[in-house]
Amino acid sequence: MKNFTAVSDIENLQEIIKKALYIKENSHSETEKGKGKTIGLVFLNSSLRTRLSSQIAAQNLGLNILTLNAAQEAWNLEFADGAVMNGDTVEHIKDAIEVLNQYCDIIAVRCFAGMKSKEDDVNESILSQFQQHAKVPVISLESATRHPLQSLADCITISENWKEERKPKVVLTWAPHIKPIAQAVANSFTEWMQEMDVDFVITNPEGYDLDPNFTKQTKIIHNQDEALKDADFVYVKNWSSFDEYAAIPEVKENWMLTAEKLAQTNNGKVMHCLPVRRNVELSDEVMDGENSIIYQQAKNRIFSAQAVFSEILDEINQSK
Amino acid sequence: MKNFTAVSDIENLQEIIKKALYIKENSHSETEKGKGKTIGLVFLNSSLRTRLSSQIAAQNLGLNILTLNAAQEAWNLEFADGAVMNGDTVEHIKDAIEVLNQYCDIIAVRCFAGMKSKEDDVNESILSQFQQHAKVPVISLESATRHPLQSLADCITISENWKEERKPKVVLTWAPHIKPIAQAVANSFTEWMQEMDVDFVITNPEGYDLDPNFTKQTKIIHNQDEALKDADFVYVKNWSSFDEYAAIPEVKENWMLTAEKLAQTNNGKVMHCLPVRRNVELSDEVMDGENSIIYQQAKNRIFSAQAVFSEILDEINQSK
Amino acid sequence: MKNFTAVSDIENLQEIIKKALYIKENSHSETEKGKGKTIGLVFLNSSLRTRLSSQIAAQNLGLNILTLNAAQEAWNLEFADGAVMNGDTVEHIKDAIEVLNQYCDIIAVRCFAGMKSKEDDVNESILSQFQQHAKVPVISLESATRHPLQSLADCITISENWKEERKPKVVLTWAPHIKPIAQAVANSFTEWMQEMDVDFVITNPEGYDLDPNFTKQTKIIHNQDEALKDADFVYVKNWSSFDEYAAIPEVKENWMLTAEKLAQTNNGKVMHCLPVRRNVELSDEVMDGENSIIYQQAKNRIFSAQAVFSEILDEINQSK
Repeated sequence: MKNFTAVSDIENLQEIIKKALYIKENSHSETEKGKGKTIGLVFLNSSLRTRLSSQIAAQNLGLNILTLNAAQEAWNLEFADGAVMNGDTVEHIKDAIEVLNQYCDIIAVRCFAGMKSKEDDVNESILSQFQQHAKVPVISLESATRHPLQSLADCITISENWKEERKPKVVLTWAPHIKPIAQAVANSFTEWMQEMDVDFVITNPEGYDLDPNFTKQTKIIHNQDEALKDADFVYVKNWSSFDEYAAIPEVKENWMLTAEKLAQTNNGKVMHCLPVRRNVELSDEVMDGENSIIYQQAKNRIFSAQAVFSEILDEINQSK
Repeated sequence: MKNFTAVSDIENLQEIIKKALYIKENSHSETEKGKGKTIGLVFLNSSLRTRLSSQIAAQNLGLNILTLNAAQEAWNLEFADGAVMNGDTVEHIKDAIEVLNQYCDIIAVRCFAGMKSKEDDVNESILSQFQQHAKVPVISLESATRHPLQSLADCITISENWKEERKPKVVLTWAPHIKPIAQAVANSFTEWMQEMDVDFVITNPEGYDLDPNFTKQTKIIHNQDEALKDADFVYVKNWSSFDEYAAIPEVKENWMLTAEKLAQTNNGKVMHCLPVRRNVELSDEVMDGENSIIYQQAKNRIFSAQAVFSEILDEINQSK
Repeated sequence: MKNFTAVSDIENLQEIIKKALYIKENSHSETEKGKGKTIGLVFLNSSLRTRLSSQIAAQNLGLNILTLNAAQEAWNLEFADGAVMNGDTVEHIKDAIEVLNQYCDIIAVRCFAGMKSKEDDVNESILSQFQQHAKVPVISLESATRHPLQSLADCITISENWKEERKPKVVLTWAPHIKPIAQAVANSFTEWMQEMDVDFVITNPEGYDLDPNFTKQTKIIHNQDEALKDADFVYVKNWSSFDEYAAIPEVKENWMLTAEKLAQTNNGKVMHCLPVRRNVELSDEVMDGENSIIYQQAKNRIFSAQAVFSEILDEINQSK
């Protein structure tokens, strides 16, 4: 694996899930693999799970870790090519990346959608600069349109929780929120589910359809009750409108996942990437109920990251 | 030791002081004990000594360290049970703790008193959530009502500085400040002194008596001069009113510890947990004088933390 | 080396450059030298290169690292001697340093010029407190008037890029900026160039002459074109006025380094300490051109730091 920013970077999804599950049982089996190598974890945004799970994964592999909270600890970054930097920005992202090239063997970066310009976000205005200027492997810790380490953890979690022969029905359901949130997790989950051996359905209110470049042939149902029927897994997530970009058109029905709604499923397991707004996106009852596999998902973030870092290290070691 | 949030978690105070003093001479004697295990150091508030001494202690034990400045690096936390999270808070503390359960073998947390609701603070509204939801040992890095790693360091420091047969007289003296400060250090020092073989006295102005649940039978003297007489150790600390919660009723006399006042003691050693407001709580002369053992106290924070982490690791290793 | 805050701390500049270049090829040759020892990296200001390169250097030497973002993570510091601390400051720098003495074997600190009081800055009001109160070696990560780890990296970079017998001509050229910036990098580069076997010239507009205590006998030319002629190395850097302290008197000519200006040099290599304001200090064309050795300079920050830390560790180990 040369980089890891989308499902397309994975050669064989089943293989990497298998590898992650092996690591889960043997997390200290490769403590020498990263020795003498450095991973830079660059955060342009807040992070709890990604921050901690990436550090654990890197520690388990013996990597040196450089964590940088870019905004608070370093300099205000300029993103525009050709900018005359006579304003608030102090360092161009290109130069920051070139310096990271000198210091790191792997660059991992979190760069959320700005939620202002649809074009900038769709084109991954920040991640694309890392992809263009980095001379070492780049790993996304969530970008404007995708959150692949989360999606891999989601696939691991579904695999762990599904032992039947038939395909499970997986439903990604939109949930309410109080402000505009990026589509990254939803997009990303969608493109990974398309690679998994599952029956995948998205349900969201009218006006909230995801980018068709992600949804492709996936069925979108605007009636939540209908979609939830017989679901084996229910992935709860809010996102703002893609069409009317970053708007949050009013939704009349209550889309919060409650125990009542969950009762319509096939004893469906509940998933969420966290952080979650309790009693807005889903009820306390669901969150704390026995169908929730949300904390297991969070734990699998470690093994998702470790499997990816390990594959990247293999590539680095081979190319020497 | 299963958890460490109060003196009651200590089985044998003299034993752990002895252990800490051994570690002080042999800080690298247990570098393998924490190998492959992870301690999460979660800061909801500022920290210098606690932050650094905990890291050193953890490094000395070979632990992996995850440091999280929760407010700045992660998400705005909700603390209310059952909250409908449609406001500013993004993640419930319960969920953050459940995630830390997945990532850490030990959770250490700093969660100061909010100084708004007496009930919340007395009931340890935040620490109690860690105690309730954590599935791994919890260590307090200072909570609303206690600062036990400081108190253990204080006990170590007194032990190091007292070689006579008779009990030393230890005086905890209130000191001036410019704004309302929690009672945690004072409460905590009080409950640890009650377990030490010392003559312990508290002195503070009228209106500043500590919570009787902490002071119990300890003598409280409202005349500072009288209290300081013959003191062998003088612990200087400000706290706000407990009765009139978080208020700072005017104090007419000057309670700042000066060289003159110190002269009334039995060549008393001066202690303070730091940070200290010079020339408000105590004079430069006292702070920089030869009776100050304040920096020694700060150093002992390392061995206090290391002794506690080591005991917790013993418990973890035994329970496997 | 006992401390490292200026070129005067270097016994033999050529030797340490040689050592740094050896380390560049053998960065993991001394992984045991720092074992069991702790370096405190204290940041009172923002940092990207210094932060990361110091951490890498320390990791390469096996040092334990304590990184402290003092303002955000610890307490608001008081710098005035004898202050009555009844205002916003919570901890005196003296006390913070005394605590660091207890926790660290080496203290490295970044403390920029305040740019308010010329006297405070010239006298290194903060660094001098570290020099006075630290009981362990002190390393500057940039202070009010100097940035010696940068300057050593600059010397390494020039050495790497100069194989001719004759002395290279090195020009430090002032560059435009939008706000008052400290003279530290320029001062420091000046005093290191005075120790190097180079022809060194400074060029800046009238009113921007550096502190004569740094420039000494170095030729200052107020005509940029004249100065650039035949330059082998061009170091681009802005600084504010020293005479009219921290002011930025208007400059009529455009001092931005462009490809046209660079054409006047002897195919001169372009240097800058970063962060750089593109198209203000120098043009994109120059920054991204083949004459730029700016990223190489950034990389050499690692070996500059590692050579210094290594020398300091030698001193510590010898004095035991």
